Amino acid sequence: MSLTQELRDTYQTLWQQMVTHPFVVEMGEGTLPVEKFRTYFLQDYVFVRDLVAMAAVGIAKAPSMLAASMLHQFLTGILNPENDLFVRAFAELGASEAEYTAASATPVTQAFGDFLVRTGLEGNFADIITILYVTEGTYLDWGTQLNAAGKQPSHPIYREWIALHSPPVLGAFVAWLGNYLDSAASGLQRPRIARIFHTALRYEYLFWEAAYHNALPWPDQ
Amino acid sequence: MSLTQELRDTYQTLWQQMVTHPFVVEMGEGTLPVEKFRTYFLQDYVFVRDLVAMAAVGIAKAPSMLAASMLHQFLTGILNPENDLFVRAFAELGASEAEYTAASATPVTQAFGDFLVRTGLEGNFADIITILYVTEGTYLDWGTQLNAAGKQPSHPIYREWIALHSPPVLGAFVAWLGNYLDSAASGLQRPRIARIFHTALRYEYLFWEAAYHNALPWPDQ
Amino acid sequence: MSLTQELRDTYQTLWQQMVTHPFVVEMGEGTLPVEKFRTYFLQDYVFVRDLVAMAAVGIAKAPSMLAASMLHQFLTGILNPENDLFVRAFAELGASEAEYTAASATPVTQAFGDFLVRTGLEGNFADIITILYVTEGTYLDWGTQLNAAGKQPSHPIYREWIALHSPPVLGAFVAWLGNYLDSAASGLQRPRIARIFHTALRYEYLFWEAAYHNALPWPDQ
Amino acid sequence: MSLTQELRDTYQTLWQQMVTHPFVVEMGEGTLPVEKFRTYFLQDYVFVRDLVAMAAVGIAKAPSMLAASMLHQFLTGILNPENDLFVRAFAELGASEAEYTAASATPVTQAFGDFLVRTGLEGNFADIITILYVTEGTYLDWGTQLNAAGKQPSHPIYREWIALHSPPVLGAFVAWLGNYLDSAASGLQRPRIARIFHTALRYEYLFWEAAYHNALPWPDQ
Repeated sequence: MSLTQELRDTYQTLWQQMVTHPFVVEMGEGTLPVEKFRTYFLQDYVFVRDLVAMAAVGIAKAPSMLAASMLHQFLTGILNPENDLFVRAFAELGASEAEYTAASATPVTQAFGDFLVRTGLEGNFADIITILYVTEGTYLDWGTQLNAAGKQPSHPIYREWIALHSPPVLGAFVAWLGNYLDSAASGLQRPRIARIFHTALRYEYLFWEAAYHNALPWPDQ
Repeated sequence: MSLTQELRDTYQTLWQQMVTHPFVVEMGEGTLPVEKFRTYFLQDYVFVRDLVAMAAVGIAKAPSMLAASMLHQFLTGILNPENDLFVRAFAELGASEAEYTAASATPVTQAFGDFLVRTGLEGNFADIITILYVTEGTYLDWGTQLNAAGKQPSHPIYREWIALHSPPVLGAFVAWLGNYLDSAASGLQRPRIARIFHTALRYEYLFWEAAYHNALPWPDQ
Repeated sequence: MSLTQELRDTYQTLWQQMVTHPFVVEMGEGTLPVEKFRTYFLQDYVFVRDLVAMAAVGIAKAPSMLAASMLHQFLTGILNPENDLFVRAFAELGASEAEYTAASATPVTQAFGDFLVRTGLEGNFADIITILYVTEGTYLDWGTQLNAAGKQPSHPIYREWIALHSPPVLGAFVAWLGNYLDSAASGLQRPRIARIFHTALRYEYLFWEAAYHNALPWPDQ
Repeated sequence: MSLTQELRDTYQTLWQQMVTHPFVVEMGEGTLPVEKFRTYFLQDYVFVRDLVAMAAVGIAKAPSMLAASMLHQFLTGILNPENDLFVRAFAELGASEAEYTAASATPVTQAFGDFLVRTGLEGNFADIITILYVTEGTYLDWGTQLNAAGKQPSHPIYREWIALHSPPVLGAFVAWLGNYLDSAASGLQRPRIARIFHTALRYEYLFWEAAYHNALPWPDQ
C-alpha cells in the first residue's frame, strides 16, 4: 500500500470529520451564519502568512528545480489572485481593512502556524510536503464533494470559496504532492511522517471547530 | 521605565495568575495530588527538548561569546543534573521509563514547543532571550515565593522542584536575561517583543492549567 | 545620502571592476572565448540553486505580502523561463545534460552559495535584500551598459544573456530592492549591512575572475 | 567497512596532507615563524564563532538528550577554558585586544565558516557530526602524532596547542562522533555525507595553507 493511502487509512476518522465538518456542510447549504465564516476568514488571513512561509522554505529545500517550481506555482495562487479574494471577501463580509490587517491569531491559528513554520525551518522537504498534502488534500476533498453535489449557496464568497477548492484548481497539485511522498517513501522515517500528518490533520479539524463554535480563546481574552 | 518593567506591568495580571496558580499554591502546601504533578512532569519532560533546542539556537545566534556562554551554562543545568532529576522523579512518581520516553505532547505542550523552536529558528537573539525571560522569570518568581515562605511539602520531588527554582539557582541567570533585554531595548521592535512575551506567558499559564485540570486534550483523544 | 548610495560610494572601485570586468567587455564585443562562457555558465547553473534558496527564504521572512510577492516574481523569472535558457544554452555551448547536471561547485561558487544560504537562513529580510541588491544591481549595471552601447555579439547566447539583464527586465526589481533598503535604513545595523554588501560584491567579482582565468581550483583538483 | 573508514580511505591523500602540513611539522619542531602562527590564530579566533554556532545548532537537532549532551560538553571546552587560551595566546603573540576583536575573515575563513553555519542550519544532525568528525578528527590526528613524538617546542603557546589536541582531550569525543556516523550509516545519503566530508577536509587543508603562505587574500586587499 502506498504511504499516502496508509496514512489516510490510519487517520480516516479524523480526516472524514474534517472534510464533513458542520462548517463545510452548512457552507455548502448556504446556512452557515456569515459571522462564522467571517471569523474563519479573518483567521485564514492570519494563517496564510505562515503557510506561505512554510511553502517558501520548501522551495529553498526542494531536491530539484522541478519540485521547487511546483511549490512556486502553488504560491502564485496565494500571492496573487487570492490576495484579491481576501480584499473582496472582507468587503462583502463587512470587515474593514483596519480590522483584517489587525486580526490576531487565536490559539489554534497560532499553534498551527508555529507548527508549520517550525517544521518548515527544522524539517526536510518531505516533512513540508506531508503538511501540504494534509492542508491541500483535505481542502480538495471537501471542495470536490461540494462541487460534485452542485452546491451553489447564495452567498457569493461561499460559492467562490467552494469553486476555488475544486479538482481543476487543486487536483493536480495534490496529486503531485501524493506522488512525491509515495515515491520518496522508502527513504522516509515513517513514525515522523505519521506524526506530522496527524498533527496537521488535528489542526485542520480544530481550525473549523474554533470558527464554528467561536470558542477556544486565549485564557486572558 | 526599563523594557522588562514595562512588559511585566503590561501583562502583570496574567503573570500574577501564573506565579500564583493553584498548581503552585498546592505544590507548596503539599496538597497537590501526585497524579497532577505526574501529568505535569511528563509534559515538562516532553517540553524540555524544545526548550533545549531554542536555547541552543540562542548560543548559535549570540552576539558575543559571553552571551553564548550564559546560555551554554543554562543548558548545563538541563543537560546534566536535571536529566537525573527526571529519572529519579519518574521513579518516585511511578512512571516507568517506557512510559515517560513514550510520552507525547498535549496540545499546549505541542503549541508551546513549536512556538519556542519557531521563534528560535526564525527570530533573533533578543526574541529568544525574551522567551527565556518569561519561562525562567516566572519560575524564579513562584520559586522565590515558596522558598521565602519556607514551604517544605512532604513529597520529596515537590521539595526538590521548589528548591531548584530558588534565587541561588536561577536568580543570576534571570537577572542577566533582564539586563540584556533592557540594554538592547532601543534597538528592538517593541510590538514584536511584547507579542513574544505575551505569547510565552500565556503558554506558561496554560501549561499549569492543562496539568491541573487534566483537560485540553486533542480532539481525537 | 541614501543607504544604497552610501554603499555604492564606499565600494565603488570594486563595483566598477565587477561591471567592467574583461569577461563583460569581451562578451559585449563577442571576443570572449566560448570555453570561458561555458565554464561560467556551468557554475552559474550550480549557483542558481543557492540563489533560489536564499530568495525563497526571503519570501518566508518578508515583512509583508507585497514584499513576498516581489521575491516570488523574481523567482518566476528563474524557475520558469531561465531554466529553458540553461537547456538551450548548454546545447549551444556543447555541454551535455549529463555534464551540466553533474557540474560541481568551484571554490568561489561554493563559497558564494554558502554565504547566500547562510545569510538567508540566519539573517533577516534586509540582509537578503542587500545581497539581491548586489547580485541583481551589478548585473543590471553591466547589462545596461552593453545594451545602451548596442552590443550585438554574434554568439546568440551572449546576445540573449545581455538582453536578459537590460533595464526592462531587471530595472523595476532592482529599483524596488534599493527603495526597500533605503526606506528601512534607519532600523538597520549599518556595519552588518555594509559587510554583507561588501562580501557579496567580492564574490560577484571573483565569479568572473574564476571563469575568465579558469583558475582558483580546489587544492586537490 | 564502516562509513568513517570508507570516507577516510577515499580522501586519505588530502587527509594526510592536512595532518602533515608544513605548518604542523614546523609547529612541532618549534621552527614555525611566530608571525604565521599569529596569522593562523587570529583566523581561528574568527572561525571559532561559526564552529560554536554549528555545534550549538547540533544540540538543537540532536536525536537524543545524550547526543545533545555530547555536543554541549564539546562546547564547554570552547566557551570556557579555550577563551582564556585565546586571551593568553594573543598576549604572548603580541596581538592587542583591539586587534584580535577586530580581526576579519580571510576568504578561506569566511568560506569555511559559511559552509559550517549553512550546513548546520540547513542540514540534519548527521551532516553536522560529519563536519565535526573532520574538524576534530584531523586535529586529533596531528595532535596525536606530535604528542606521541614527544614534541616540546620552546614557544609555550605551541606546546599548549599541541597538548590541547592530544588523545586524552579529544580522543573520546572523536570516537563518539565516528561511532555515531557508523551506527547511523544505513539511514544516511552517502553522496551527501561524502561531499560534506570532502568539503570540510578541503577547508581544513586550505586553513593551514592560507596561514602558512600568508596568501589567498580578498581581491580588494
